[in-house]
Amino acid sequence: MDNSRIEKIIERIKAKDVRVVSRLIRNIEDRIPEAKEIVKRIYPYTGGAKVIGITGAPGAGKSTITDFLITSFRKKGKTVGVLAVDPTSPFTGGALLGDRVRMQSHAGDDGVFIRSLATRGALGGLSAAVEDAIYVLDFMGKDIIIVETVGTGQSEVDIMNNAHTILVVLTPGMGDDVQTIKAGIMEIADIFVINKGDHPNTTKLYMDLMRALDMVQSFPGNWRPPIVKLESIANPIKFAQQVDELREKIEEHFRFLEDKDIFEERERRKARVQLINAVKSQMLYPILERLEEDGELEKMIKGIVKKEASPYNYAEDIRERFLREEV
Amino acid sequence: MDNSRIEKIIERIKAKDVRVVSRLIRNIEDRIPEAKEIVKRIYPYTGGAKVIGITGAPGAGKSTITDFLITSFRKKGKTVGVLAVDPTSPFTGGALLGDRVRMQSHAGDDGVFIRSLATRGALGGLSAAVEDAIYVLDFMGKDIIIVETVGTGQSEVDIMNNAHTILVVLTPGMGDDVQTIKAGIMEIADIFVINKGDHPNTTKLYMDLMRALDMVQSFPGNWRPPIVKLESIANPIKFAQQVDELREKIEEHFRFLEDKDIFEERERRKARVQLINAVKSQMLYPILERLEEDGELEKMIKGIVKKEASPYNYAEDIRERFLREEV
Repeated sequence: MDNSRIEKIIERIKAKDVRVVSRLIRNIEDRIPEAKEIVKRIYPYTGGAKVIGITGAPGAGKSTITDFLITSFRKKGKTVGVLAVDPTSPFTGGALLGDRVRMQSHAGDDGVFIRSLATRGALGGLSAAVEDAIYVLDFMGKDIIIVETVGTGQSEVDIMNNAHTILVVLTPGMGDDVQTIKAGIMEIADIFVINKGDHPNTTKLYMDLMRALDMVQSFPGNWRPPIVKLESIANPIKFAQQVDELREKIEEHFRFLEDKDIFEERERRKARVQLINAVKSQMLYPILERLEEDGELEKMIKGIVKKEASPYNYAEDIRERFLREEV
Repeated sequence: MDNSRIEKIIERIKAKDVRVVSRLIRNIEDRIPEAKEIVKRIYPYTGGAKVIGITGAPGAGKSTITDFLITSFRKKGKTVGVLAVDPTSPFTGGALLGDRVRMQSHAGDDGVFIRSLATRGALGGLSAAVEDAIYVLDFMGKDIIIVETVGTGQSEVDIMNNAHTILVVLTPGMGDDVQTIKAGIMEIADIFVINKGDHPNTTKLYMDLMRALDMVQSFPGNWRPPIVKLESIANPIKFAQQVDELREKIEEHFRFLEDKDIFEERERRKARVQLINAVKSQMLYPILERLEEDGELEKMIKGIVKKEASPYNYAEDIRERFLREEV
């Protein structure tokens, strides 16, 4: 790898060169080795940024909340990076574009950097790409990094593990009472946000949520997730005020993390997920790619389809071939 | 491993012993080596069952549809296995239980086998557990296997890859117009189901969906996913009739797969995911477990938190230690 080239890129990131950062994030998504080398080198100098995760069902209004949170943090003099994670496909390009266009209200503000990340390739690795992109924005000097992601699956939970403060956005009238219980994201929420709170079912959702929280025996560090209500974007001035209050709650949670030494616990949880992802990207994917190039993956897939042997049999062959005996 | 014990278990599965099958599925979830050995041995004798995947947002009514589909297939003399996948946590035990209780309407029918699967442990592997459980129900002689899963994440897409026919359930008035576009599951749907079709927004959702489908250039084998509307469960007789029509659409899709040789393509896609999961379970998890036992994982996590080195550096150490040089 070209060392002086890498040093130059790192300097350009530090100088907040938006084009260089954008290209680097694209290379991270594409798992270019050079990008990984850069992340490794900047890693020891990261840790200055606070990371906010925003998750919730599609259509819950996460992008709008992100948009207003940017404004709210900017008013306080904080720089903001946004990673909008969309675990989808070319088919959905339109929606993604729409979201991004909406966020262009910050386009002239160089204290704001917004980038979308999507799944590339069949082997996954989105969660690892998000982590690396966070390091880059952190190293670039962003004070606040907002990671916005759709959904309730394991990959979203992995992504949320990168956040210091996790917002779960719910909306009344979307079956969210059931969703709250089912989404599996209940226990990772630091702050609940009820959006579209002018809907008639808001009180029911609020009460259901309170009841669910009442059932929890104890919260880590005694932080009981507060519930913040936002009304309709139809009244943008009021909405902005309410998002300011949300920002204050987020800052309160930042202080809580520092006071209670829970920060380190969260860092540890994050480190664990990161390590597992790194092992996947350093060991698992190279092996699979190698087998793919050799056409052996294809042969194995045929064998599985023809029921010649089970996936486990082939996996054992792979294991024997690539692993040292000691495991 | 005790060979005669394994042979006995395999015989009990063939004899449709529900208790043995339940225990085996639990062992699959817990990644007990014996369970894996059993799956390896029965694998060549599987492939007789048709697998239906049902996915959609929480609260969309997937369990109710599954419940009625069971009845519909039973009327046709088919035996049915159901795997309800809930990628969640102890916190959600209540909801899970509620779902299961509702399905107990089939409790006295030994042509029906229903089991829930949930994520266990931090290392994932739910998708692999679902695959293995499908083989067990297949080997047990179930004609139809329904896999029901919440959500839109990558793990759900992985799980859906096990299905021959994928149903995506949408509901009007839940922001599902946006969801349809964003969920990333659009391109894997074989049949769209609009549930709660007595809602005033049904026509809009239907039209949005039609428009989205109109935008698709070509469908594999020219199967354009049909849209089946179900009305409210408030009128159970009508609902049952509509589910019968849904069952006919599913059977039509089964025939389509066979006629068009698309069946094999789907089997190949499935085999690929299975192989990757098997490699994870045979190589990645044992290494991580070994490091965990030795306390080395803990040391690495500490080093990452203290910014002594990046996750990639540790992953490279792991790679060097465990992999042969050839990769």
